[in-house]
Amino acid sequence: MSKATDELFKNVISHAKEYGFVFPSSEIYDGLSAVYDYGQNGSELKNNIKTYWWKSMVQMHENIVGIDAAIFMHPTTWKASGHVDGFSDPMIDNKDSKKRYRADQLLEDRIAKYEAEGKTEKAAQLQQEMDDALKAENLPRLKELIIEQEIACPVSGTRNWTDVRQFNLMFSTQMGAVADDADVVYLRPETAQGIFVNYLNVQKSGRMKIPFGIAQIGKAFRNEVIARQFIIRMREFEQMEMQFFVRPGTQKEWFNKWKETRLKWHLALGTAPEKYRYHEHTKLAHYADAAYDIEFEFPFGFKEVEGIHSRTDFDLSQHQKFSGKKMQYFDPELGEDGKPYGNYIPYVIETSIGLDRMFLLTLINAYEEEDLSTEEKQDSRTVLRLHPVLAPVKAAIFPLTKKDGLPEKAREIMDKLKLDFNIQYEEKDAIGKRYRRQDAIGTPFCITVDHQTLEDNTVTIRYRDTMTQERVPADDLEKIIGDKVSWKNVLK
Amino acid sequence: MSKATDELFKNVISHAKEYGFVFPSSEIYDGLSAVYDYGQNGSELKNNIKTYWWKSMVQMHENIVGIDAAIFMHPTTWKASGHVDGFSDPMIDNKDSKKRYRADQLLEDRIAKYEAEGKTEKAAQLQQEMDDALKAENLPRLKELIIEQEIACPVSGTRNWTDVRQFNLMFSTQMGAVADDADVVYLRPETAQGIFVNYLNVQKSGRMKIPFGIAQIGKAFRNEVIARQFIIRMREFEQMEMQFFVRPGTQKEWFNKWKETRLKWHLALGTAPEKYRYHEHTKLAHYADAAYDIEFEFPFGFKEVEGIHSRTDFDLSQHQKFSGKKMQYFDPELGEDGKPYGNYIPYVIETSIGLDRMFLLTLINAYEEEDLSTEEKQDSRTVLRLHPVLAPVKAAIFPLTKKDGLPEKAREIMDKLKLDFNIQYEEKDAIGKRYRRQDAIGTPFCITVDHQTLEDNTVTIRYRDTMTQERVPADDLEKIIGDKVSWKNVLK
Repeated sequence: MSKATDELFKNVISHAKEYGFVFPSSEIYDGLSAVYDYGQNGSELKNNIKTYWWKSMVQMHENIVGIDAAIFMHPTTWKASGHVDGFSDPMIDNKDSKKRYRADQLLEDRIAKYEAEGKTEKAAQLQQEMDDALKAENLPRLKELIIEQEIACPVSGTRNWTDVRQFNLMFSTQMGAVADDADVVYLRPETAQGIFVNYLNVQKSGRMKIPFGIAQIGKAFRNEVIARQFIIRMREFEQMEMQFFVRPGTQKEWFNKWKETRLKWHLALGTAPEKYRYHEHTKLAHYADAAYDIEFEFPFGFKEVEGIHSRTDFDLSQHQKFSGKKMQYFDPELGEDGKPYGNYIPYVIETSIGLDRMFLLTLINAYEEEDLSTEEKQDSRTVLRLHPVLAPVKAAIFPLTKKDGLPEKAREIMDKLKLDFNIQYEEKDAIGKRYRRQDAIGTPFCITVDHQTLEDNTVTIRYRDTMTQERVPADDLEKIIGDKVSWKNVLK
Repeated sequence: MSKATDELFKNVISHAKEYGFVFPSSEIYDGLSAVYDYGQNGSELKNNIKTYWWKSMVQMHENIVGIDAAIFMHPTTWKASGHVDGFSDPMIDNKDSKKRYRADQLLEDRIAKYEAEGKTEKAAQLQQEMDDALKAENLPRLKELIIEQEIACPVSGTRNWTDVRQFNLMFSTQMGAVADDADVVYLRPETAQGIFVNYLNVQKSGRMKIPFGIAQIGKAFRNEVIARQFIIRMREFEQMEMQFFVRPGTQKEWFNKWKETRLKWHLALGTAPEKYRYHEHTKLAHYADAAYDIEFEFPFGFKEVEGIHSRTDFDLSQHQKFSGKKMQYFDPELGEDGKPYGNYIPYVIETSIGLDRMFLLTLINAYEEEDLSTEEKQDSRTVLRLHPVLAPVKAAIFPLTKKDGLPEKAREIMDKLKLDFNIQYEEKDAIGKRYRRQDAIGTPFCITVDHQTLEDNTVTIRYRDTMTQERVPADDLEKIIGDKVSWKNVLK
């Protein structure tokens, strides 16, 4: 990351705190590692992103419904999904510093170093050797590579390493109080399984016909060893996932459709298309037959925001195996041979987006330190150019002064508007200062009530992006604001 | 609970499953005790309840903002709040059955038995003795009472009891992977503390002036020993809480205001007022100086749905003590002595509502098995008389038949409406059957597209509650539906 982008990222993080978007969790107790809280503006922005996703996926699609499954699930779920056995990282401890590292990340840092030094051949060779060891789950070989490469602990500086061991990333807890009967349950590491275990119930009670989808927004938890980059990788995070159930053989077609649909969802917010790109997975997970990421250009480079995965029938088949319940769908439609397709386990296309990453993307993309200097004087502002549908506060209302009945008039106008929109009232400081505060949280409209308002019921409306002002009848505000913040502007 | 109300409650539970409102969690694995998932209609209904609360509390109040704090918090939070030491139940095990019970509930069952038998004096005496023991945290005395009363284990039938011990209700887990440095963290047992630890950050970054409130919706977790009555008491549940910070000495006045405001919120949904009542706490928690419950009449009796608590400055004082951070607010306003009130730790009024209970209340209150029999034939329907703002599906659209271009016309109308509302399309079965299915999930409007629609663009609209039908222009639908489902109908 260059100095300028590093600086920008730091500024966004401190802006997020200063303006009530994101606070470190339990900050009065010096925070909790890799956990964050959303403040008064952050929670509104996050809710708006959720609403946009939910409306786009559920409300706009006749054949997609939502659910809200619990974080706690039956522990066998995670045996079936493979998480109990496979959701782990290879870890190594330095005996002197007592610090623990991901073995593959130590090696990747070394590969990056080779590349930075132009030693591309060495880099490629180590990459190959590491990939082979990971694929074979050969943990002793990973340790050998660390020893061979003479990698030292960054803290102690020594090469006094333990063996490499697998460390499961799921958080576990004990449920139930009955003396000899407490069960280990996990905090779900992904929301997807909540959809799969409810597939039968939803399909039957909702009379769903293939192809159909089930969408869900919810928390997931991963005991990440190295959590980093602000809210990019957290131990507690939120996902927006949709599993789309299709007839076997049609998965490729649906995969392509969802790949396109999801990118359009991002672009409908007005983000520059060059900020996005697709990334195709060449190494596929064992359950997948195709996978693409949608990546966004963060200040520290392109990073995954959303994944579109063709998961085959892996999950439903596993749950059928572990639960003994038939996960089959009877498809009455006729195939080319004139016979009904009949019973099959559906294939699944998944679209999975990290809500917190989407939040950070939105904040970074909207953030601008704008130079407003003229020949006479230097001036600048920090403005969040959020799409109006996402703005935490839709309009701010200011009485020009605190007297002459202007606050009362301003509140009278607000009391009508607040039935429809999130409105903020501010009477302190000069109007210019109030504009700046609203710019900083992305409020698209500022409305000033002055003495003329008392005479002709008109107000000044000031637009965030252009900073232009206009005199309009107070009675037109509902429509002016409503038109801009309507979901219709982004739903396709 | 009488046989009829017991029957009613059972019917609501099975209706909730059959129509996609609530499923037992991980049901394919035979469920997870006291954990439930919300299905396709349940998740919409739950979201609508959340939206109603959020809009009423945050959007409608100039001086209330929302936050969204993480479930994981710094462990010291729970020392300060008293949960590590005090959030526990007195438990006793039967050595033969290995079953564990809450000691006080065994005694309470005995008291109820005395009362049922008309032995009111005995009941009162035992109640007094138990209360004394609980107040003094005298666990041996609780055991003595169980022995004296000759209470036997309902499973083994024996009186072979262990000592009474305290059992903490918080779920704990290990965070972090560093070998010697994994921390025990808790899943929050209440959302309130997420507000208190963020009090300073919100007050400063939001420039909040007392009195002001912070609202939050989120999950909480309690390892309940005896979880029961469907979603009334769950191990994973959701709360909607608001903490209102006031000047010391004004708490009584604000307590009364919130007590009234919150009951109005419930009644605005059209529920019969006699279904609700206040219940004053006579035994107050150590931090409270006043507490009322709002109770709703469930089929099994009046039960708490929401609590309004005057929490004094207990929580903020505790966090000041444990964190070393000043929790004081500087109040510049002038008191009766002409001097500013100056620095103080604010007092807090809390309104706390269980979202899942509110959901169940809504479902039960809306549920009706309506007799539609006439002299000619017997008929009935199950209808959810949900307030239109809460209905999961706002309107269903039916082509009269599957041919003649009617499905296309129906979808054309739907495609316009779905930008604003959650719409369902159904073309299977006779119209009457489709009506019944929509009644069962509480859809306020059913719209039928027939051959006349192709000629004059009018449709039949059928109203859920009255079952009357009307012919209206398709272009009027947006307004007809919009008027009824507008939040303006319930926001005050």
